[in-house]
Amino acid sequence: MPLNPLVTQTLSTTQTAIEIAATAAFALSGIVEAVRKRLDVVGVTVVAFATAFGGGTLRDVLLDRRPFFWVEHSWYAWAVLVLCLGTGAWLRSHHLAPTQQAMQWPDALGLGLFAASGTQIALAAGMPPLIAVLMGVMTAVFGGVLRDIVCNEIPSAFRDHRPYAVCAFVGGWLVVGAQWLGLAETAALALGAAGATALRLLAMWRDWRLPGMRIHR
Amino acid sequence: MPLNPLVTQTLSTTQTAIEIAATAAFALSGIVEAVRKRLDVVGVTVVAFATAFGGGTLRDVLLDRRPFFWVEHSWYAWAVLVLCLGTGAWLRSHHLAPTQQAMQWPDALGLGLFAASGTQIALAAGMPPLIAVLMGVMTAVFGGVLRDIVCNEIPSAFRDHRPYAVCAFVGGWLVVGAQWLGLAETAALALGAAGATALRLLAMWRDWRLPGMRIHR
Amino acid sequence: MPLNPLVTQTLSTTQTAIEIAATAAFALSGIVEAVRKRLDVVGVTVVAFATAFGGGTLRDVLLDRRPFFWVEHSWYAWAVLVLCLGTGAWLRSHHLAPTQQAMQWPDALGLGLFAASGTQIALAAGMPPLIAVLMGVMTAVFGGVLRDIVCNEIPSAFRDHRPYAVCAFVGGWLVVGAQWLGLAETAALALGAAGATALRLLAMWRDWRLPGMRIHR
Repeated sequence: MPLNPLVTQTLSTTQTAIEIAATAAFALSGIVEAVRKRLDVVGVTVVAFATAFGGGTLRDVLLDRRPFFWVEHSWYAWAVLVLCLGTGAWLRSHHLAPTQQAMQWPDALGLGLFAASGTQIALAAGMPPLIAVLMGVMTAVFGGVLRDIVCNEIPSAFRDHRPYAVCAFVGGWLVVGAQWLGLAETAALALGAAGATALRLLAMWRDWRLPGMRIHR
Repeated sequence: MPLNPLVTQTLSTTQTAIEIAATAAFALSGIVEAVRKRLDVVGVTVVAFATAFGGGTLRDVLLDRRPFFWVEHSWYAWAVLVLCLGTGAWLRSHHLAPTQQAMQWPDALGLGLFAASGTQIALAAGMPPLIAVLMGVMTAVFGGVLRDIVCNEIPSAFRDHRPYAVCAFVGGWLVVGAQWLGLAETAALALGAAGATALRLLAMWRDWRLPGMRIHR
Repeated sequence: MPLNPLVTQTLSTTQTAIEIAATAAFALSGIVEAVRKRLDVVGVTVVAFATAFGGGTLRDVLLDRRPFFWVEHSWYAWAVLVLCLGTGAWLRSHHLAPTQQAMQWPDALGLGLFAASGTQIALAAGMPPLIAVLMGVMTAVFGGVLRDIVCNEIPSAFRDHRPYAVCAFVGGWLVVGAQWLGLAETAALALGAAGATALRLLAMWRDWRLPGMRIHR
């Protein structure tokens, strides 16, 4: 079921724009966390890189896929470098860091897009459905996990009882379902990304909580 | 020195059974640790996966070996997922978690089997003996290391002064020795796995301690 | 601009000697940190391996380059094993550990050499300049980062406000510049390694500090 070329083109431009916004949001969340932990400028930069590129890199290592996207488009790395230095200068001259609240929008977009595109890439590499969905979840979540491990904390995605990875998981299955129904790749991507993002925003808005696993006493 | 086909068949069935029990034991040890650290349901699941599949995955990444066993047999991933949810339900309705004691048996079996099979796979990939043995040790131990790093602890395998990795190391050398003597692969595997497991059980029973490395004052 | 063969030969022997000294220095820094954290003999050995081989291994995984250098030259692994046991015996019978001060010389040499050779290997694999330099930095720095993560600390390279990764970064760009100017590979390597090492020693001698990134209040 091929889409109209104009629609595809628009979606593709939109995807690139979201991807850049999402990578920037992930990098920023790394910068904010690293500054909070009083890392030096090197530490802040490394954490920004790890948060922004960690998920996609793990996916590509597991899929044995080369070149990495940050090798193919090495201006991504330049952009993160500039973002780090720019944020550093901004933080020195202003009294306000970007609030957690302000960053949740691009972060939710990135979560959805990376989950959907990670799932799609893994499906294209011949992974079975569950594995492809888990690869999508990794793509979306592993950067933040790496950020927290380097900052010597238990990853917040694993203990804050908010649906985050779960939204990526649902988005991944939407992609699998859409491709199984024969939808075009771009449509499947859009559906999965929109689904995961919407679910994440809904979860934040309604303040949903994940159940813990507790031992009764 | 080929073995009787019936023996080989029996050994292979036994190996699969041990492998499943061991993977389940590793996953369970991840679940218990994650629950103790009050992770949410996502964190518990991720730690279970990391503990169960981490060692074999690291080995396969280092050997550049694809597909991963959890990609080839994706029901493994389903099984761990079901195990997590099942354990969650069990913990909510029962007052008892599986005791550390009860889990040491399948854990020791898994240690031996993963060490021996990891060594054998690395030898088959053309690694020199020491490297192959170290790959076997990694296969057996890295899952638990990953579990402890994610839970923000120094890995217990590195500081509890109990022989654990050392048993895997000995088991790996048994495999190397057996293959060097010309034994069949299945026999070498059985010998290495049994040796490492027996040594581990013996070490727990006799309460053996590893020497520390301390700076005299 | 090929160098005189005798010069090349001398440089190559020097490089091997530095490489061995640097690997030993990295392994020693792992041992000292692990002993300080009261790990057992297994933990000390693993941290020594991770510190010595972590950087080069990450580089080779990212570049999809096999065999690893510690597979090709498996006596490296034997040497680290012997170093661990020897240091253990030494620490039991002597009152002195190698001081941090004494180890900073080979560590600075290793930093320079690994940064330069990592950059060169990445350039040879067709990476763009910035990526190649970052690979050089990783080669030089990731071992120590892994050491600190396993020991459950925020990596010192990220928070001690001393130029360390920055020196590797500069050394990497020297290699890129030298190759771009058409210098022989050996000369580029020597230049980059010497530059990074000199910068590191200078930074320690003059007690330079990196700026932090702080939020004004």
